[in-house]
Amino acid sequence: MPDPEKIKELKNLATLIRYYTLVATTHAGSGHPTSAMSATDLMTGLFFGGAFRYDLDNPRHPNNDRIIFSKGHASPLFYSLWAAAGKLTAQDMLTYRQFGSPLEGHPTVAFPYTEAATGSLGQGLSIGVGLALNAKYLDKLPYRSYVLLGDSEMAEGSQYEAIQLATHYQLDNLIGVLDVNRLGQRGETMYGHDLMAYERRIAAFGWETILIDGHDFAEILPAFEQAQTVKGQPVMIIARTIKGKGVSFLEDKNGWHGKVLSPEQLEQALPELGPVDQAVRGKIARPQDLRPQEVQPQKAGKVSYEPGKAFATRKAYGNALKRLYPQYPKMVSLDGEVSNSTYAEIFKEAYPPRFFEMYIAEQNMVGAALGLACRGKLPFVSTFAAFLSRAFDQIRMSQYSDANLKFCGSHAGVSIGEDGPSQMGLEDLAMMRAVLNSVVLYPCDAVSTEKLVEAMAEYKGIAYLRTTRMGTPVIYGEDEEFPIGGSKVLRQSEGDLATVLAAGVTLFEALKAYDELKKEGILIRVIDLYSIKPVDVQTLQEAARATKFLVTAEDHFPEGGLGEAVRSALAAHPAPVYSLAVTKKPRSGAPEQLLDYEGISKDGIVNLIKQLEKRL
Amino acid sequence: MPDPEKIKELKNLATLIRYYTLVATTHAGSGHPTSAMSATDLMTGLFFGGAFRYDLDNPRHPNNDRIIFSKGHASPLFYSLWAAAGKLTAQDMLTYRQFGSPLEGHPTVAFPYTEAATGSLGQGLSIGVGLALNAKYLDKLPYRSYVLLGDSEMAEGSQYEAIQLATHYQLDNLIGVLDVNRLGQRGETMYGHDLMAYERRIAAFGWETILIDGHDFAEILPAFEQAQTVKGQPVMIIARTIKGKGVSFLEDKNGWHGKVLSPEQLEQALPELGPVDQAVRGKIARPQDLRPQEVQPQKAGKVSYEPGKAFATRKAYGNALKRLYPQYPKMVSLDGEVSNSTYAEIFKEAYPPRFFEMYIAEQNMVGAALGLACRGKLPFVSTFAAFLSRAFDQIRMSQYSDANLKFCGSHAGVSIGEDGPSQMGLEDLAMMRAVLNSVVLYPCDAVSTEKLVEAMAEYKGIAYLRTTRMGTPVIYGEDEEFPIGGSKVLRQSEGDLATVLAAGVTLFEALKAYDELKKEGILIRVIDLYSIKPVDVQTLQEAARATKFLVTAEDHFPEGGLGEAVRSALAAHPAPVYSLAVTKKPRSGAPEQLLDYEGISKDGIVNLIKQLEKRL
Repeated sequence: MPDPEKIKELKNLATLIRYYTLVATTHAGSGHPTSAMSATDLMTGLFFGGAFRYDLDNPRHPNNDRIIFSKGHASPLFYSLWAAAGKLTAQDMLTYRQFGSPLEGHPTVAFPYTEAATGSLGQGLSIGVGLALNAKYLDKLPYRSYVLLGDSEMAEGSQYEAIQLATHYQLDNLIGVLDVNRLGQRGETMYGHDLMAYERRIAAFGWETILIDGHDFAEILPAFEQAQTVKGQPVMIIARTIKGKGVSFLEDKNGWHGKVLSPEQLEQALPELGPVDQAVRGKIARPQDLRPQEVQPQKAGKVSYEPGKAFATRKAYGNALKRLYPQYPKMVSLDGEVSNSTYAEIFKEAYPPRFFEMYIAEQNMVGAALGLACRGKLPFVSTFAAFLSRAFDQIRMSQYSDANLKFCGSHAGVSIGEDGPSQMGLEDLAMMRAVLNSVVLYPCDAVSTEKLVEAMAEYKGIAYLRTTRMGTPVIYGEDEEFPIGGSKVLRQSEGDLATVLAAGVTLFEALKAYDELKKEGILIRVIDLYSIKPVDVQTLQEAARATKFLVTAEDHFPEGGLGEAVRSALAAHPAPVYSLAVTKKPRSGAPEQLLDYEGISKDGIVNLIKQLEKRL
Repeated sequence: MPDPEKIKELKNLATLIRYYTLVATTHAGSGHPTSAMSATDLMTGLFFGGAFRYDLDNPRHPNNDRIIFSKGHASPLFYSLWAAAGKLTAQDMLTYRQFGSPLEGHPTVAFPYTEAATGSLGQGLSIGVGLALNAKYLDKLPYRSYVLLGDSEMAEGSQYEAIQLATHYQLDNLIGVLDVNRLGQRGETMYGHDLMAYERRIAAFGWETILIDGHDFAEILPAFEQAQTVKGQPVMIIARTIKGKGVSFLEDKNGWHGKVLSPEQLEQALPELGPVDQAVRGKIARPQDLRPQEVQPQKAGKVSYEPGKAFATRKAYGNALKRLYPQYPKMVSLDGEVSNSTYAEIFKEAYPPRFFEMYIAEQNMVGAALGLACRGKLPFVSTFAAFLSRAFDQIRMSQYSDANLKFCGSHAGVSIGEDGPSQMGLEDLAMMRAVLNSVVLYPCDAVSTEKLVEAMAEYKGIAYLRTTRMGTPVIYGEDEEFPIGGSKVLRQSEGDLATVLAAGVTLFEALKAYDELKKEGILIRVIDLYSIKPVDVQTLQEAARATKFLVTAEDHFPEGGLGEAVRSALAAHPAPVYSLAVTKKPRSGAPEQLLDYEGISKDGIVNLIKQLEKRL
């Protein structure tokens, strides 16, 4: 039974936090006060009840406990907690949702106590999985990762991906706090206040579950204590709560989601909270000052491939991870049950403790990778390019966490052949280009793949590498450099009629087209546009000036890919750019047949250039 | 206990099917024979054991039972079943995976017995949910929907989205068949042959579960019989199977996923199957000849909005659904727990039986919508534009089913304001443009929204509508027409310096820029580019000829959106196109502040044009 004095103190803190919540949201004119109020006692109990350990002056301390608000719309609570801990003033709280304030509508990394941006529901638990994997298997630190979950968001399948993986990796350092307040945005959730419905499901996946009244500190504090004693499995505290708890006309009422009180309603509500002690501040226990063992980087070995020999870029990706790990000892690899196709298995076999099998659950894979990145790791995430689309929301959200995350999508394009369209990545360039400050790379051979994986490792931010299923000949020497934003002019003469811009598998089609056209006396410039974003504007502009028109050829749909990247690069100095891309519904067939069918093979390039030449 | 004669017949059929599987895959040189063999007895029992009812001569019969191979890589089994039913010849089977054959590597709708294309795992059960919702709530027909599931794909969270929703809607006409063959692509699954692990999880969500030996017809047939007697809940038959069953050197062996036998290995394997009766054909029971009640379309009412009055396009979307339903009685609306934000609730309140609350589970929402579309319904799927990214893989896959599916993404762009970046759709245009033959629409006012929803309903295929959170003034008259692929030239004079292309919220910024520039003697053309794909090439080319340069302004990231659509339209007749788009990490703030911050407001447009004018 917790100390009555402690409970009294926590009640005072909870009152202050509800006060901040209501005042800040009314002042902002928008926000989700009722979703904050249901979880206030839970989080107050966690932060100030003794379980949570955190160095307030050093949010990046490697042994801090971690807290993720998966229900990011409870941000008024999140900020109020740090205010109650003394790290924000009452005045700061009034900047909530104002332009320029770090206290954004949903938590972002503009606020130093935010581990990762949230607000798209059902992502926080995956981030927690990443944080917990890091503690248990990499940093080997005793910190715990707590995730506040809403009941509505338990409808997201990503939750069950995270739940099953956490069990698989026996993450007893991961503690979910499920705020079952019964009401979603537009009405009751699927299970209302049926806590057992959640317990059955979560326990079936192998979690320890603890059911409590989420407004009773005499249940909250022992729950967090008990959670710390569980071994070998994650813990979910499932709490019955009341949305809008603390204000009678808000409590358990539908229609108050995402609504704030008017100033008049606020005046009516505040007295209901009882006396507010604006001076009270909560204490958070400090963590042990433990740090992970640091591994000193060592220079990576050299790239070595036999020129002219066919080698799949996907396999070079695996080789590159293995080769580069000594130089980037923060590197980890995550793969979605296809490591023998993406060739992440080469890394896995070389450095088993640095590889995480994430099974066929791409959303959780990306969320967990973000969690690992938050703890300073350098995650390389791989699956088929097509299946990265499964995690677009997680990829999108990771840009708001300023994540240092690397993606590799294998099996790009129709050139995968017989497996058919479901397995073909044909929209991955569009998807990955549409991420703020992303880097998008598409190598054609093994050497450039290796060099570009290194460039990705060096780059701080989100980077994507597109690899090809089939083998392609090695055309670059081992000392060739491949800076991000560069390109390679592979064929060039005085009097080039046109420039062909290609990458990956189509680059070889362009080279074949060069040979064939040359025989007929037509000279073309051929550029390997391995860096799709940023794209080599200068070289493109030179080519546009030097040749009559440009032709792009890509194994991707026309929208958002290489062709549009080229056009955007030339926007102010326009030149005619003709695009060859995948425009017919792809089918099963041999790679060469499919490249021909889509008109992106040598013949397609040759025919277009001859046709355009006639028109000149 | 099933009839021994029946079992003998089924065994003969299963032998023939395994024979076809092995021969076809070896002939093709690629495929997944072992994944087909584990499920052969299950599917043979379903098809030919009496449970499955199907009019072989009429695959589109509305009362046929439905079968979805969620594990689409078991396609050799899928095709072999129809061969064993007499609908494909041994010769047809040899076209498997050949270019031009309907027997593609993963099932596509090129094959008339495929309900929906599969191959990206974890999607079939959602499609089944849609098929079952249709039977129970719309067509009111007794057909059942069967979904063959792999054990590896049970790691996908989308499965649990489908599982929970099926329980919620009491889909006792949905029967899953889980082929637990223990082995995934690169090794053992998370649970191996622990059938109880699957049972605990699935039963916890409220499904009836039946555990069987998946190779014993004496268990398979009763399981399907029992499944038909369950009331009020869906059923999962969880079957212990052996990957590669039937050939000793394949059975339960790792390393055989996605691999075919060499001709020599085939010769060694075939005798192990026992005598193959190539003449045996299975009988499938016919369904009752029931048909859904047809509702005659009635002309929809007229659009009516007060000119100049602010009205949110998202609300006009809801109004349009309600107004148009009588004209499109196949219409249904699905929403992800945000119907009071997307305004799908207007339709829901008018036509409750046509609305499906799908909770916060976007993947399953899109999969189920595809299932409904497969049964001839006209689904409109709505959520925040940002959260449609959660279902990109399902959207991507639906293009391979030639789906007639409509999407609405609300809360587009930074103009949503204070909620911050997690809620802002800033990559939805890029995502939806990169879908084959998609239509992408972005209206600026209530009238054009209504007209474009009608155009979407009329269009056969995938169409996307982008709506805005805040109110925008009604600028179009009620009789204005908005064809797909059109645009509206709103300001135009002799001597226009530049053309501004905008849509949605930026259109009003462009109109304000027009007013301001006009005062300074600079005339610009302003075009409402409401159809982003297809885009109005002719009008753009005219504008490019008539004015010195073009400026695009969009509340979207620069890649894959309106700006790149314009450039692609002008590719062959290039003109300078300068783009204003969201290029800084968005924040919380007032809509106007954020439009200013990103430089896509009136000031951004005016400043760019004046700056460019000086350079001329």
